[in-house]
Amino acid sequence: MAGKQGKPQRPKAAQPRGFRDYLGAEVTQRRAMLERITAVYEAYGFDPLETSAVETVEALGKFLPDVDRPNAGVFAWQDEDAAWLALRYDLTAPLARVYAQYRNDLPSPYRRYAVGPVWRNEKPGPGRFRQFYQCDADTVGTPTVAADAEICAMLSDVLEAVGIARGDYMVRLNNRKVLNGVMEVVGLWSPDDPDAQAQARGIVLRAIDKLDRLGIDGVRALLGAGRKDASGDFTEGAGLSADAADVVIAFMEARRDNAGATVAALRDLVRGSTIGAEGVDELEQIGALMAAQGYGADRFVLDPSVVRGLGYYTGPVYEAELTFEVRDAKGRAQQFGSVAGGGRYDDLVKRFTGQQVPATGVSVGVDRLLAALVARGAGQSTPPGPVVVTVMDRARMADYQAMVAELRTAGIRAEVYLGNPKNFGNQLKYADARSSPVAVIEGSDEQARGVVQIKDLALGARLAANITTNDEWKAQPAQMEIPRDELVAQVRAMIARAD
Amino acid sequence: MAGKQGKPQRPKAAQPRGFRDYLGAEVTQRRAMLERITAVYEAYGFDPLETSAVETVEALGKFLPDVDRPNAGVFAWQDEDAAWLALRYDLTAPLARVYAQYRNDLPSPYRRYAVGPVWRNEKPGPGRFRQFYQCDADTVGTPTVAADAEICAMLSDVLEAVGIARGDYMVRLNNRKVLNGVMEVVGLWSPDDPDAQAQARGIVLRAIDKLDRLGIDGVRALLGAGRKDASGDFTEGAGLSADAADVVIAFMEARRDNAGATVAALRDLVRGSTIGAEGVDELEQIGALMAAQGYGADRFVLDPSVVRGLGYYTGPVYEAELTFEVRDAKGRAQQFGSVAGGGRYDDLVKRFTGQQVPATGVSVGVDRLLAALVARGAGQSTPPGPVVVTVMDRARMADYQAMVAELRTAGIRAEVYLGNPKNFGNQLKYADARSSPVAVIEGSDEQARGVVQIKDLALGARLAANITTNDEWKAQPAQMEIPRDELVAQVRAMIARAD
Repeated sequence: MAGKQGKPQRPKAAQPRGFRDYLGAEVTQRRAMLERITAVYEAYGFDPLETSAVETVEALGKFLPDVDRPNAGVFAWQDEDAAWLALRYDLTAPLARVYAQYRNDLPSPYRRYAVGPVWRNEKPGPGRFRQFYQCDADTVGTPTVAADAEICAMLSDVLEAVGIARGDYMVRLNNRKVLNGVMEVVGLWSPDDPDAQAQARGIVLRAIDKLDRLGIDGVRALLGAGRKDASGDFTEGAGLSADAADVVIAFMEARRDNAGATVAALRDLVRGSTIGAEGVDELEQIGALMAAQGYGADRFVLDPSVVRGLGYYTGPVYEAELTFEVRDAKGRAQQFGSVAGGGRYDDLVKRFTGQQVPATGVSVGVDRLLAALVARGAGQSTPPGPVVVTVMDRARMADYQAMVAELRTAGIRAEVYLGNPKNFGNQLKYADARSSPVAVIEGSDEQARGVVQIKDLALGARLAANITTNDEWKAQPAQMEIPRDELVAQVRAMIARAD
Repeated sequence: MAGKQGKPQRPKAAQPRGFRDYLGAEVTQRRAMLERITAVYEAYGFDPLETSAVETVEALGKFLPDVDRPNAGVFAWQDEDAAWLALRYDLTAPLARVYAQYRNDLPSPYRRYAVGPVWRNEKPGPGRFRQFYQCDADTVGTPTVAADAEICAMLSDVLEAVGIARGDYMVRLNNRKVLNGVMEVVGLWSPDDPDAQAQARGIVLRAIDKLDRLGIDGVRALLGAGRKDASGDFTEGAGLSADAADVVIAFMEARRDNAGATVAALRDLVRGSTIGAEGVDELEQIGALMAAQGYGADRFVLDPSVVRGLGYYTGPVYEAELTFEVRDAKGRAQQFGSVAGGGRYDDLVKRFTGQQVPATGVSVGVDRLLAALVARGAGQSTPPGPVVVTVMDRARMADYQAMVAELRTAGIRAEVYLGNPKNFGNQLKYADARSSPVAVIEGSDEQARGVVQIKDLALGARLAANITTNDEWKAQPAQMEIPRDELVAQVRAMIARAD
């Protein structure tokens, strides 16, 4: 290709739209958080699984999670033998494939966790990326609600392990069967033909999910004839009568002060529906299991307003919400909201094997949780910068490298300055850019006398903020001369002083 | 889609051809190895970088690493706005993009490391996958050979950190400039037109690279008129005269007992070539830096037979070879060969900015190195299986969950059996499949007496190997009754006994 004036056109140095890079502390902070999460998963007996990023489109299936955007897609391409391959859009679809593939060799139940990027071919937006991390834990092969309770307890432990204080989060539980019971009561679901009226149920689900944003009147409009928004756009409603809409709204607002009262309210609402009663029983059992283990109302609650967008859930659904406020860019107080969610899905493996395999699991939104930690001032474990050994005499590089080797052997991160050493100021600027705690200086004079200079850069920076005259600069105690053979001990002491 | 007899066709539960899954210990072993490698990288002052898996095809460029297979490709697809996107095929191309993109904000020199999967759209084969891990460290922005020496020293430290003993590996160094000097001497390279005769040089490079396989006569044939292999296929040669071929072969065999002698032999061979002399000087300097730091002939050697396939290297090239033998599937002794390699590439960033940016770096072949560790019996840090609390009474699930919570709080990996508890044998089989060290059993009788049974499964397995009669089974001491309130202490003691 040739550009204007016949000059060769250069490629643009940019990541594709919707993708991002993580540098330095952004990598180490996330890694530290993920290590804490997976340590909890492992303590609960979950084993790691890492599948490849690429799956056949056939194996991924049509389980794209967001029912609001059925066209939201995957990144897919055709293989040389015409098979369609795609990047995974979550970690659950590959789990279903793996379980179907290896089911005879896996322990049953199979508890697995997985960490890694997933990809969505969606329109990027502020804070919405086309590649992001998930960190999931799922139990496959058991119908008992003890498995759901275990994951709710684990989710609570995970949040506290990464540094979210008790009181700053809430694990909220609901059950799709209760929701189906409500649908049955209002005439939108029937055990004889569970697939009928799926569209109207979808409208109800989305309306419930939007309670925060639309308020009770907006939700009521969507449950009934439909809703016209401020711009004049009309959204079709579910067509429920006013009485039926009252039942749905009563369901959304059925959360009471304690689990027993909530269960009683729900049982009343789904009276006459077998599946509804089953769902309420499950909520009650999970609540009892949580209470018996000490997960009380300060961190776990039955909350009928929890829906979770994912179409494939069949029983308990749960999410973890951060309840503290942070200021947004305009200084407005905002709640962080949901950072993890999941539920029971009993049909995913069936696609492959024809047999229903009950499963339940949670996915942590890694980037959102990390953002919350950073906003909270937690999780900012920036790794220390390296000690920088400066180069005063290019011919003595081997001596400088011997110094850093000594420091490293003592467990101190260290490096030689490898840029052009001519301008000494640039070497100190470099050390500054690396957040170095200490710079080491040894010219020919020092070498002759068997000493080195070590410079406390952290102290220097603090002094620089308060020193204005040149004389003060010269008097500042941030640099000291030490015997060469005390290098490791003195550098270690200087770093300790800076902490 | 409908299959035979009109039944709906199920998707196949399989990963795409050439991709693989990692389960359990396969994940934790690799993770443990990568943590050791990156700890060394960090000690040397390298900072982490994580780019997205997806790049524009334009940014990736045509730097596919293997000159032998110019058609080897990337996985690429067209975005909805017609831009071509692709999965990265290595970690170096994204580094060049990132450096060009952020160069004003990055420290200079920029030392970065990166770990992650890369993808190759190649024909899969035994041990050849289309997704695999790389673990790279590169220094961008400095021309000094001290940077190359640093990476050679670090590579040695990395191998010892993961568990390869000194004496079981060798870091081998060569220099492309010396090779170019040899090419100049034999008339295949000219400073006036460095791009000319690239094809003939490629034939020479590949011939040198195949010395192990073809022997000296095969290489000589490829340097000259060409070579017919056993099947009768003819490979075109570089067309060198016998005298010129002698020079190339002398170069390949220029390794002597010590670095000084090797340098002298090379200096003799490239006499009259400016670039050749420059390359020999660099080898000498790196050798001196390594020797001064104590990296002697037991782990570092100048070896002119090192070529490295990658077309973009411009100076020092290095690789780490494992020198111990392992048995292959047929019991034949084989050397493991190269597990890491790299070199200096000064032109990659220039594609974006027009300015030459000197850089040097190494890539560790993660899967190969891990395979070597496993073959060597190192790196087999299988994580302990969880303590399994069995379920004797389904109604008392909360009690069992309280037990595992106690164990976990004490730092012991533990879980409740969540399968169908009816068949107790299945519970023990499950514990066995999980490699559980201990099973906990509490029925109503035990509960009434305030005790639990704990079963040493590790000991049980050892006994099972030696016990043949039923009476012996009953007499085996692998199970004991303990007070319930001593659960944590006794389980911990039993696990300690098993280790």
